[in-house]
Amino acid sequence: MNSAICLIPAQEQALRIEKLGLEVPTLITDAANLFYLTGRVFAGYLMITPGVEPTYYIKRPLELTGPGVEYIRKPEDIGQRFPGGLERLGLELGQIAWADAERLMKALGAKEPVNVTPAIMNARAVKTPLEISLLEEDGIRQAAVYERIPRLFRPGMTDIELQAAIEYELRLQGCLGIFRVNGPMELHMGSVLTGENADAPSPYDFAMGGSGISPALPVGASGEEIKPGAVVMIDMNGCFNGYLTDMTRMFVNAPAVADLNPKVLNAWKCSQTICRRLAEAGRPGVEAKALYELAVEIVEEFKLGAYFMGHRQHAGFVGHGIGIAVNEQPVLAPRSKSVLAEGNVIAIEPKFVIPGFGAIGIENTYVVTPDGMRRITPAPEEIIPLI
Amino acid sequence: MNSAICLIPAQEQALRIEKLGLEVPTLITDAANLFYLTGRVFAGYLMITPGVEPTYYIKRPLELTGPGVEYIRKPEDIGQRFPGGLERLGLELGQIAWADAERLMKALGAKEPVNVTPAIMNARAVKTPLEISLLEEDGIRQAAVYERIPRLFRPGMTDIELQAAIEYELRLQGCLGIFRVNGPMELHMGSVLTGENADAPSPYDFAMGGSGISPALPVGASGEEIKPGAVVMIDMNGCFNGYLTDMTRMFVNAPAVADLNPKVLNAWKCSQTICRRLAEAGRPGVEAKALYELAVEIVEEFKLGAYFMGHRQHAGFVGHGIGIAVNEQPVLAPRSKSVLAEGNVIAIEPKFVIPGFGAIGIENTYVVTPDGMRRITPAPEEIIPLI
Repeated sequence: MNSAICLIPAQEQALRIEKLGLEVPTLITDAANLFYLTGRVFAGYLMITPGVEPTYYIKRPLELTGPGVEYIRKPEDIGQRFPGGLERLGLELGQIAWADAERLMKALGAKEPVNVTPAIMNARAVKTPLEISLLEEDGIRQAAVYERIPRLFRPGMTDIELQAAIEYELRLQGCLGIFRVNGPMELHMGSVLTGENADAPSPYDFAMGGSGISPALPVGASGEEIKPGAVVMIDMNGCFNGYLTDMTRMFVNAPAVADLNPKVLNAWKCSQTICRRLAEAGRPGVEAKALYELAVEIVEEFKLGAYFMGHRQHAGFVGHGIGIAVNEQPVLAPRSKSVLAEGNVIAIEPKFVIPGFGAIGIENTYVVTPDGMRRITPAPEEIIPLI
Repeated sequence: MNSAICLIPAQEQALRIEKLGLEVPTLITDAANLFYLTGRVFAGYLMITPGVEPTYYIKRPLELTGPGVEYIRKPEDIGQRFPGGLERLGLELGQIAWADAERLMKALGAKEPVNVTPAIMNARAVKTPLEISLLEEDGIRQAAVYERIPRLFRPGMTDIELQAAIEYELRLQGCLGIFRVNGPMELHMGSVLTGENADAPSPYDFAMGGSGISPALPVGASGEEIKPGAVVMIDMNGCFNGYLTDMTRMFVNAPAVADLNPKVLNAWKCSQTICRRLAEAGRPGVEAKALYELAVEIVEEFKLGAYFMGHRQHAGFVGHGIGIAVNEQPVLAPRSKSVLAEGNVIAIEPKFVIPGFGAIGIENTYVVTPDGMRRITPAPEEIIPLI
């Protein structure tokens, strides 16, 4: 274990803290935000006070060292450093449980909490060059695993058997297994969908559904056999270093794509077209909702409106920011107020459910640059034969 | 997908709701609590009003049916049903984010939130016969996978390679992959520890540490080779149906246990002795802290105090409740105020880190009965040769 408390360069940390624009003393405790601001996860609190070096109030792990490190047993130990109490205290009110926030406010004698979640989410939405390099690494490693998927497939497999084989390969290649999410979304390592299961409504605002293998986790692969000639949509975990890329590719249980039904090929072509045209159009200053509207226009050209982002249940977006969490800002959605900025990293996932065929579509992760959106999920976009 | 909103029998649901003892109208939204009270997970809210049939305010998935089902788009839609507003509103303040709680209170015109998290956790700590049968199923399925571990091992493997192979086997046998936790604890499918890595302090109050393969998830297997003659502690996911059992077993990279160092055998024997004597002593009315104290007494008999529940960093408990989440009530800890009740399900995990040898100890899950604690993790407790 590297015992230095801060695992990102000091200049990088200063840049990220500055981007938050905090105006009040703030305690950070959410794992994703701690990782963003220190490069590691610990139990405790990072205190950021404007104009002052950060303090790390750490419960666990033991043995961390560096300027600003103070070990505490409980939040009340922080309060002893502020005998006069604080007027206002910044807290991640979008993440932290009510009871935990109340305890922290009481411990620090704070009269009023200030919600810093929006400021942190806005900062995290615009990646630094160091963050982009980590995301690029994820894309390369995720693509390398996707390339091996046909070798993992055996005729007669179910969706969950293929998913488990991909999970195994991902883990052997260094995938962390978990990925972080904002809000109440539960999913294990991604989604493999084939056949009618793609149309089962899920509890979340997902592009695709799936009933899962248990009502305790009602999403994704259901144990359905991957039938001869059937297409399979694969959207698996790209988290290798704390950041993650999102990439979906189509596979077919056939030796070639030539025999695929024209409806399937049309939907795949539409998905690829949306990815490419949005990537060309997306640059700093462009409204997120304009990209959504462009996607809808293309869907209409392909006459696929009834199937876009689901069939029995529709998702209300075509892309989403991604970074430390799989769902960050900006969201490409009809009512989004976001405007694209250089350094946004966005997954575009135009997907369709065509009754009788299942889920069809691809997904790529892109970095917003002045010249358009640069793809960082380098796997070929074509439908890939599994046998 | 079974579209009936409630997937547990009506009588079972009524029993669980009664156990909560709620005195105010309450909105339940945490996934684990929704699963407890309905047998499924959905996006939305279960409203429980004393003396009234439950109402389900559902955002997603579409197509759920049954008495009390009402679809909403946003929490404010619930408020329209309560034009006069509510004086007090029960919320899971131990789980729900501050901003979400505030929005719900505003939507329902509530003046004061009532924290129902303690009541729910107390209810969930005492399992019903139906819940116990699900936990028994988990134990049997988890033990069946553990039995196959020697067949998954290949000489030269690292800890993470063996863990990935066990994960794959678990998933093929129906393990859901995820397990739910209370509070901020992150871990992917469990822990495989060998050698010095067991002593790396973790960010959580875990019996064992491990530095992980990335500072983004600094816990568990680190990529360390499982050396010839070395012991391996395996503590992997037992979640097959939304409940989970917790079970740890010891393995050795040798053809037989006869050559194991006496220090290793002594620690393993101490762990087994603690499990057995606590299981005999644990019954309704016994204080949780008395069981912890009994464990410490046995540790002293074996002269293992310096290594109990860690070496560089110690965990402050010897057992924990388990059910829908891996960490429920009661906790067997020195300052616990819990008293055991019939139907508690508790994992006992006396573990040691012996410098030079690594992590040693076993763990079983037990049901508290009037005659003592009945083990439901049926794998043999002996150290198992891997080759």
